[in-house]
Amino acid sequence: MKSTKLKSGNYLEDFLIGQVIHHPTPRTITAGERALYTSLYPSRHALYSSDEFARNCGLKESPIQDLIVFHVIFGKTVPEISLNAVANLGYAQGRFYQPVYCGDTINAISEVIGLKENSNRKTGIVWVKTSGYNQNGKLILEYIRWVMVRKKHPDSLISENLIPKITPSVDPKSLHLAGDWNFSNYDFDQAGEPYRLHDYKPGEIIDHIDGITIEETEHILATRLWQNTARVHFDNTVRGDSKRLIYGGHLISMAKALSFNGLANAQSIVGINNGSHTNPCFAGDTIRAWSEVEYIYDFQKNGIGAIKLRTFITKGEIEKAFDDNQKYDRNLLLDFSYWALIPT
Amino acid sequence: MKSTKLKSGNYLEDFLIGQVIHHPTPRTITAGERALYTSLYPSRHALYSSDEFARNCGLKESPIQDLIVFHVIFGKTVPEISLNAVANLGYAQGRFYQPVYCGDTINAISEVIGLKENSNRKTGIVWVKTSGYNQNGKLILEYIRWVMVRKKHPDSLISENLIPKITPSVDPKSLHLAGDWNFSNYDFDQAGEPYRLHDYKPGEIIDHIDGITIEETEHILATRLWQNTARVHFDNTVRGDSKRLIYGGHLISMAKALSFNGLANAQSIVGINNGSHTNPCFAGDTIRAWSEVEYIYDFQKNGIGAIKLRTFITKGEIEKAFDDNQKYDRNLLLDFSYWALIPT
Amino acid sequence: MKSTKLKSGNYLEDFLIGQVIHHPTPRTITAGERALYTSLYPSRHALYSSDEFARNCGLKESPIQDLIVFHVIFGKTVPEISLNAVANLGYAQGRFYQPVYCGDTINAISEVIGLKENSNRKTGIVWVKTSGYNQNGKLILEYIRWVMVRKKHPDSLISENLIPKITPSVDPKSLHLAGDWNFSNYDFDQAGEPYRLHDYKPGEIIDHIDGITIEETEHILATRLWQNTARVHFDNTVRGDSKRLIYGGHLISMAKALSFNGLANAQSIVGINNGSHTNPCFAGDTIRAWSEVEYIYDFQKNGIGAIKLRTFITKGEIEKAFDDNQKYDRNLLLDFSYWALIPT
Repeated sequence: MKSTKLKSGNYLEDFLIGQVIHHPTPRTITAGERALYTSLYPSRHALYSSDEFARNCGLKESPIQDLIVFHVIFGKTVPEISLNAVANLGYAQGRFYQPVYCGDTINAISEVIGLKENSNRKTGIVWVKTSGYNQNGKLILEYIRWVMVRKKHPDSLISENLIPKITPSVDPKSLHLAGDWNFSNYDFDQAGEPYRLHDYKPGEIIDHIDGITIEETEHILATRLWQNTARVHFDNTVRGDSKRLIYGGHLISMAKALSFNGLANAQSIVGINNGSHTNPCFAGDTIRAWSEVEYIYDFQKNGIGAIKLRTFITKGEIEKAFDDNQKYDRNLLLDFSYWALIPT
Repeated sequence: MKSTKLKSGNYLEDFLIGQVIHHPTPRTITAGERALYTSLYPSRHALYSSDEFARNCGLKESPIQDLIVFHVIFGKTVPEISLNAVANLGYAQGRFYQPVYCGDTINAISEVIGLKENSNRKTGIVWVKTSGYNQNGKLILEYIRWVMVRKKHPDSLISENLIPKITPSVDPKSLHLAGDWNFSNYDFDQAGEPYRLHDYKPGEIIDHIDGITIEETEHILATRLWQNTARVHFDNTVRGDSKRLIYGGHLISMAKALSFNGLANAQSIVGINNGSHTNPCFAGDTIRAWSEVEYIYDFQKNGIGAIKLRTFITKGEIEKAFDDNQKYDRNLLLDFSYWALIPT
Repeated sequence: MKSTKLKSGNYLEDFLIGQVIHHPTPRTITAGERALYTSLYPSRHALYSSDEFARNCGLKESPIQDLIVFHVIFGKTVPEISLNAVANLGYAQGRFYQPVYCGDTINAISEVIGLKENSNRKTGIVWVKTSGYNQNGKLILEYIRWVMVRKKHPDSLISENLIPKITPSVDPKSLHLAGDWNFSNYDFDQAGEPYRLHDYKPGEIIDHIDGITIEETEHILATRLWQNTARVHFDNTVRGDSKRLIYGGHLISMAKALSFNGLANAQSIVGINNGSHTNPCFAGDTIRAWSEVEYIYDFQKNGIGAIKLRTFITKGEIEKAFDDNQKYDRNLLLDFSYWALIPT
């Protein structure tokens, strides 16, 4: 007797503008996830390594790495949003609202804010605004992403076509600075580099030097840790080439960790402007990262600034983002723009 | 000067009916083991993911995953019971007595309850009842397992032949329900599925859909985490085919985690009826799982029921447990029957 | 616009006798690192497995594994000391001063105590004394190591040539015994073996039996966990043979964990006499370990003794450290001498 209980994920027809989805499986984050993160990524930013350093920056202890918060919330959305995705098209308007600490429990909610059927009538695009909350119901992260998903039937009609207005970049004035951050007594020796906000200039390009050869087990352990269930990461029979696609967020974490070399004081991600996974990444690839400074902003408060960075990962030539036709180079894997807090 | 201190494990002749073995290496379980478990298995049952969800079910916080408790206790028994095992033949009569929490310390004791020499006089079977205790001496898990072990010498006599009476299935009335469990306010939205005890019917078959390609490092990290020292899992020179056998318990954890899809509310394992590792599993295998509902039982208390499930793992065709001769299919890796708590 | 912020590590010319280097990135150690350690190494020493056992030995709880402390402090020194190293030549005069517990934060400082240019003028040797401190400024570990590093230019002069006097072995009278250690009520059953200090004789050789086939991902996860950034461990394009060199400390941890079999009561490393990584180790190698008892010492206090052990790891023939020319056998990977606490 075959069960009828299985969920096979949502198709384009299943989404409605304004629909609110409460994602299951709340998650309590602990010291275990923190340590695993350090084991998975070459993470050396002092704020996420030392309770003492974090206290000296006004926090109660070293917070959960901001990208753990992102990955866990993103992972929660996969079963309802992107299980039938053809491609993860982009992120935008990401803002972190407050630090998450060991013992906090994360929930995620998504609202459908855009829908568009593609002209082939077989697929379409869904835009969602996803919000993460802690156990006290406080907002901790909000971002928009859009994915191309399959339709169940080419002939079916979708409820409404609406392309939402996406801001290409987060206005630094809108970045949320929880009241307790304070870089007045920031210890540059412990952090590892002497550079402050105003030591960086827009247009400056920083090669993060180190290369990392990615192994199969690493990205599987990581992706599973975030309870991300997309089959293409775990089952090598899905794609047809016996390869498991590496979760794009794995590369974002690699990029942020590698950026220590040159950006040791760009501690916390507070905004996500946009991000593209420009080519697929597989085990065996040796990746390198570089960043371009896009903007600097001084909050004029507690010695805190924000630096806007565009970080790239390549498995080919460093600092080559585009080919001769000004398209993404075929070896480029990530183009990610974010805001990070940095002492002034 | 060669040391004489080494232990080479027990042989059939070393066991005596009624013998009690106190296994060494007590183990304190922490948030680290919890997080690693989530990294190793696609675990999404809310009770083991969120402190808040667990509190809403009457517990003080999210307990240690029940299969961590099983694996740690099982691992402790390996050096004394199964270091010279030829095969791990079965489990039965498993009962979990109470939740284990972060900071609890686990000890294990085994009693020899059966012995039988095989007709070839080179091997025999030993049955043990293993009990796990916490730091307060409270029983947390009890189960029977039997293994085929080598004899030291074909000519030696064993003390006694006794085949114990094994109950094929745990009576649900004998399942232990610690006083604090309460599913009256169970949050089905957070758990991920709306199905209650009575929504399941004996004979119902649930395909858990997702496939997982197993990597070498994953099962090694897991098996080591449980301090299981059986050489065949770690040393690829043992078998002669350069392969490392995957610890059977690794597949039980995979099965339970995969069962989220269709059995999201079958939270805690409270009884183990029987289990067979029907064929060996190796790195590179892509596994899938399905479950058959065997029985449902209502405790008539605090909204708690128990569901008896028979879960299979195959590296071949889903839902094919047996071949044309009614023997286990050569691709079937696990046949495991257990009781889980589920809201009524 | 190319950034000039990158650090490319120190060369021989950059070191000065007496120079004190404060290494960045303080690190708070938690239950997460403890659990990962158990997952990475077949660790079964009871003192590091059970809070209850540790309390029974006079400690407040089970301390952080002593080799985690070593690896984290060692890892901190890599960017300033050995990023341009040709070879890690040796350790000596290591002393652990007190246990580290979950929540403690580790800092590291190195003092340059020796310099010598090699006759080829392309490389030289730098000796450093590295000290690790906890968040209260208390010394937790001190050791000397020396590495061969590159010069920037063959023609440049170095400040001073000074070869420091290195004691070949730590005097047991100088070993630091934190006041709270007490083995008077030591539980030998829980520890797993009955042997006390005086059961061991200098010259006794203990084969630890178990073999371990090392996987790529394991050593990468470990080395990253210690925030060790040496490229040769992570980037398979560095060496020219597509191999990643396994961090030598990974083998020290393997050796200590394997030594459980025969040395279950040699719990804590309190001194490091010397250590050589005699040949490189790569993924795929199956390693085995043995130890030779070098000396025993009775503190005449709280039932505590110290055992001096020389532990070897080979990927070839067990107990074969030297070849016919009395040089290290080509399969020998580690020759490591240390002091461990053991009940009398």
